[in-house]
Amino acid sequence: MTFWKILWQQHQSISNKIHDEPAGSKTLIEEFYHEGKKIAIILSREKNINLHELEELCGKVGWVKRPLKKVKAAIKNSFLTISLSYNEDKKSKLIAFARATSDSTFNATIWDVVVHPKFQRRGLGRILISEIVKELRCSDINTITLFADPQVLNFYKTLGFISDPDGIKGMFWYPNSNYS
Amino acid sequence: MTFWKILWQQHQSISNKIHDEPAGSKTLIEEFYHEGKKIAIILSREKNINLHELEELCGKVGWVKRPLKKVKAAIKNSFLTISLSYNEDKKSKLIAFARATSDSTFNATIWDVVVHPKFQRRGLGRILISEIVKELRCSDINTITLFADPQVLNFYKTLGFISDPDGIKGMFWYPNSNYS
Repeated sequence: MTFWKILWQQHQSISNKIHDEPAGSKTLIEEFYHEGKKIAIILSREKNINLHELEELCGKVGWVKRPLKKVKAAIKNSFLTISLSYNEDKKSKLIAFARATSDSTFNATIWDVVVHPKFQRRGLGRILISEIVKELRCSDINTITLFADPQVLNFYKTLGFISDPDGIKGMFWYPNSNYS
Repeated sequence: MTFWKILWQQHQSISNKIHDEPAGSKTLIEEFYHEGKKIAIILSREKNINLHELEELCGKVGWVKRPLKKVKAAIKNSFLTISLSYNEDKKSKLIAFARATSDSTFNATIWDVVVHPKFQRRGLGRILISEIVKELRCSDINTITLFADPQVLNFYKTLGFISDPDGIKGMFWYPNSNYS
């Protein structure tokens, strides 16, 4: 599957909005032909995501299945969501997703960054995260945080994220902690 | 200032609600006499915090002054806020504060944990954080996160927080990062 090559420089220069919806717009990331069919990769800032598709995508990277009702509420209460879809003729397939929680003012935290295994290593994760950073910066949010698995630390570092700045540590509390 | 000694065990057993407001209740944490005056330490879950007092409190621990309009918006868009006040006669003084952002469902992040320097090392930070954890757990939120300065790592560890579980790293993006 070497359909296309997305370059970050290309993404930065793209301003080709295919919709002008005030509440959640879409951006064409890439358009190309494959076996005679027109393929479009589209970035969406809309929250009306097909939850079944999202959970299927999360399943592809080995995440535990979550109740759709909860996923729906989490998306509703996120500050923003960004998704990427692969569009062939009139069929659309969700291939990447990320969201952020925020106080809308000072801080934000990025969660649920997922790229379909067949579409990894093509710059889609970079497009997702850079779009989130851009949107948060548009809202004048200065502290953007996330929790990174060891294997993606370097990926986030190339996007300007710093791990443990000034010795600040990310900490987690889970229900099975010794204090519950 | 050795007015009182707050024990975590005491706090856990307290159910003495002094108001029964559905939208944001208060809990009496401790009551005692000092120089003939009745003192009460009260925990509040209400968001109608005096912003001048809050910024004064933050200033006491050396935080940079923030625009009140932004602080107001951040509190409004937080999932919850917890504050502690010191009440003498009819005067009330804000002495501790913390808040959390959340998707209301899966994840939450605790921010702005502050205890007045004169009231530190008395268990107030413990009361704040444990109350936040309790409230988030009541909403069935399982992943509670925060970013801890090196000097408070052990404090959070005693409350069941784990740093870098499975090598997961807290990462930050700031506007002065190399990618902006």
